[in-house]
Amino acid sequence: MTGKRLQGNREPASPDAAHRTAPTRGLLTDLYELTMAAAYLGQGMAGDSAIFDLYYRRNPFHGGYAVAAGLETAVRAVLETRYSSQDLTFLESLRTSAGKPLFSGEFLQYLAGHCFRGSIRAVPEGTVVFPHEPLVQVSGPLIDCQLIETILLCHVNFQTLIATKAARICEAARHAPIVEFGLRRAQGPDGALSGCRAAYIGGVEATSNVQGAALLNMPARGTHAHSLVQSFPSELEAFRAFARAVPDDCVLLVDTYDVLNSGVPHAIRVARELEGSGHRLAGIRLDSGDIAHLSREARAALDAAGLSYVRILASSELDEAAIADILAAGGCVDAWGVGTRLITGGGPGGGALGGVYKMVAHNSRPTIKLSSNPAKMTTPGDKNLIRFFSAEGLMEADALALRKEDLAAGEALLIDPLNPRRRKKLAGGRRVELLEQIVVDGEPAGEWPSLEQIRARRREQLEALHEGCRRLHNPHRYWVGLTQALWRQRAQAIRRAAV
Amino acid sequence: MTGKRLQGNREPASPDAAHRTAPTRGLLTDLYELTMAAAYLGQGMAGDSAIFDLYYRRNPFHGGYAVAAGLETAVRAVLETRYSSQDLTFLESLRTSAGKPLFSGEFLQYLAGHCFRGSIRAVPEGTVVFPHEPLVQVSGPLIDCQLIETILLCHVNFQTLIATKAARICEAARHAPIVEFGLRRAQGPDGALSGCRAAYIGGVEATSNVQGAALLNMPARGTHAHSLVQSFPSELEAFRAFARAVPDDCVLLVDTYDVLNSGVPHAIRVARELEGSGHRLAGIRLDSGDIAHLSREARAALDAAGLSYVRILASSELDEAAIADILAAGGCVDAWGVGTRLITGGGPGGGALGGVYKMVAHNSRPTIKLSSNPAKMTTPGDKNLIRFFSAEGLMEADALALRKEDLAAGEALLIDPLNPRRRKKLAGGRRVELLEQIVVDGEPAGEWPSLEQIRARRREQLEALHEGCRRLHNPHRYWVGLTQALWRQRAQAIRRAAV
Repeated sequence: MTGKRLQGNREPASPDAAHRTAPTRGLLTDLYELTMAAAYLGQGMAGDSAIFDLYYRRNPFHGGYAVAAGLETAVRAVLETRYSSQDLTFLESLRTSAGKPLFSGEFLQYLAGHCFRGSIRAVPEGTVVFPHEPLVQVSGPLIDCQLIETILLCHVNFQTLIATKAARICEAARHAPIVEFGLRRAQGPDGALSGCRAAYIGGVEATSNVQGAALLNMPARGTHAHSLVQSFPSELEAFRAFARAVPDDCVLLVDTYDVLNSGVPHAIRVARELEGSGHRLAGIRLDSGDIAHLSREARAALDAAGLSYVRILASSELDEAAIADILAAGGCVDAWGVGTRLITGGGPGGGALGGVYKMVAHNSRPTIKLSSNPAKMTTPGDKNLIRFFSAEGLMEADALALRKEDLAAGEALLIDPLNPRRRKKLAGGRRVELLEQIVVDGEPAGEWPSLEQIRARRREQLEALHEGCRRLHNPHRYWVGLTQALWRQRAQAIRRAAV
Repeated sequence: MTGKRLQGNREPASPDAAHRTAPTRGLLTDLYELTMAAAYLGQGMAGDSAIFDLYYRRNPFHGGYAVAAGLETAVRAVLETRYSSQDLTFLESLRTSAGKPLFSGEFLQYLAGHCFRGSIRAVPEGTVVFPHEPLVQVSGPLIDCQLIETILLCHVNFQTLIATKAARICEAARHAPIVEFGLRRAQGPDGALSGCRAAYIGGVEATSNVQGAALLNMPARGTHAHSLVQSFPSELEAFRAFARAVPDDCVLLVDTYDVLNSGVPHAIRVARELEGSGHRLAGIRLDSGDIAHLSREARAALDAAGLSYVRILASSELDEAAIADILAAGGCVDAWGVGTRLITGGGPGGGALGGVYKMVAHNSRPTIKLSSNPAKMTTPGDKNLIRFFSAEGLMEADALALRKEDLAAGEALLIDPLNPRRRKKLAGGRRVELLEQIVVDGEPAGEWPSLEQIRARRREQLEALHEGCRRLHNPHRYWVGLTQALWRQRAQAIRRAAV
């Protein structure tokens, strides 16, 4: 299927194909976005004004924060979305259960000329974020805001998940280098590529994915597989051949037969031979067994052989918990190759970020979605998101405020929306508005930051986050509150909706 | 990033771009495949003959089986893989830590002319499979077999995971219709599209993903979001407007304000109005709260209003366990929308299928990878995979056998490789060789089956699987054993490798 699709993009299927409209991303959405758009158009409401917030309700991995990512990918997709004649032909072919066309000719004609003309404010990629904070705020004509919901969520949910996972893994590894090894377990090639981008934002240093390295200008790394060892009459001959092929960057996989009795002694022998020819063995890789024990023993053997410069790379079903355990048990690992759980964001509390996209205003009136669960109620209205810093430069609290409120200076009182009796008073200190203007009336508002700039932002932000909030398990809950004015507006919306 | 890449594929970046080689998938691999390939070429071993098995070690989701999927996508990717001049320019730019080119000119020249010329046997998509069974067997020149490892694993791992998840969800729902709702939580658009394909193979009936529906010729389904209700002065007005827009397929989301006191009564009112204009309300959707309770109450209210034809769709963070619980609690749900956990294969024991690709023969000599964990040892040699059926037509056991063994008839004795004292004798009955020839010397061996044929195969296979093996939790372990001849060959390889 993917094959067919990519082929379709790559070369004209027939001589006249070049004259047809190119395939677009218009169909990469949930059907209900189109059905709702048709209803809005039919009711004369397409041009109503609306505001939507994209936010999530629980930090992934039971952690204390998330690292925002995926914005550039998402917004590029939004701005490139068009509906080609092929797309429209498909939509025209859809039938209701009564056998009638699902979409009117009027709606399809509208789509043919449609592109996103709304505006987008968002938290820049690399920012540390928390539950209930708008990561993206979309405003503009109702139909424009509605049609981009699915694609926006797809990219921001996934990349934020993976950037957060990467940041947690780096934290567990005490900032030793992490190499992303996940392509073979990724959810399709795109999952691998955008996952690779997000992992780089979150803090990994390199990837095994060559395409990712080429597209993202990221270091590519790799060692060898067991099959290389099996292709030679003996492990020693395999190691020698591989050392000849990459004498300066040779990392030998030592667990094909027996780590301590075969792999490590053979690696030591090859390291000495490399020294003889003016090179140095870069490292060994452990890919199975008790990594804490094996790495300690391997380190001792290498050191005893005068090879303290040879590094140990570990890579066996790792994640932040496994890495923390290995280090707590005295494991001697210099670098980590992390695959499956990094590229898929797997593990407890992972797999997906549950980001949602909710309408918060319609024709300038704040709107709300009620729920018996207070955590599932929306926060109505056009908002700002302001971060307060302590005198020591640490992040102290985030405030959701009315857009028109001026919180540049002076005292502020925040109310915890999940427990209104819990309040926090903020005095002086630095304050930053986190939502930046990204798109104005369908046009990009500026240049995209480079990945290096995004990585620097993530670094600074995590350094300013209290270590209690960075803790891998049972973290401290960061303060996110509503200003009194926003709290009152929310209470009003609840009363009005409950009528 | 994705934006840049797709743009690159779609239109020439400069007037002379059309004269350059189109981007290919050659780089969509782990760096170590290329490093190993370079080592093989340097050693004069590129043309050695090899056989690799792709298999997994544990059923996903702690279940009793998996449904094989992703083969067509994977093999198309393998056969389309080329190395363009752009790819080679990037590889040429890679440097070792000593600042020298990582790859030799000879190797890059080799890659420029390389395409896969090996052969592939595989279990057809839709087949029920078990741990340690080769799903794909690749044979041919060593370098050809090695270079395709990553891309093969990427597609087969992911789609097998999702097809299995879908089959489990259908089983839990007692084969009520499942709609795939996952695009917004998928791991990138490709994750959504190939996940959609796999979910269809596994048994879902429709998708909300319009692109998926268009590409896979699959039914598209959708309802509406809370935002539609919020866009109108009242829920009732919103329902009326939506019913006007899609009078024959109207499914109303009833939980924006209060399911039983607002959503359901308003839906009943609109259903009566639709009857007045000659239509029928298709259904209501529950998207939060206690689905078991709410669906029972909603059913009672609808039935009391003479609307027993109105169906109830549920869609709130569902998976096989949640669905089974709701039904066990007497929930009245006619159809299910399943998103996050279906499209990402999330949940306990999920997130990724841990498929591996291991060399089992080199220059016609069986090879092995040892491990202190017997489940991680490979089964050496060129093999067949034979399924034995009971007189009742149920699957009885699968045998891994030497390729040259004739198991067409007669008695067979199977040995459990994880517990060699456990043996099973098989007498008569139907026997089927599961590995089919897919590619011969780089050329497809036949036509691909349609998705409908693959779905039919999955249906038949699961019907022939004992219900104890289909159980969602603590399933019965299906018998997979080695023939005595293969067992002896494995023991020999272990002895030889341990020397």
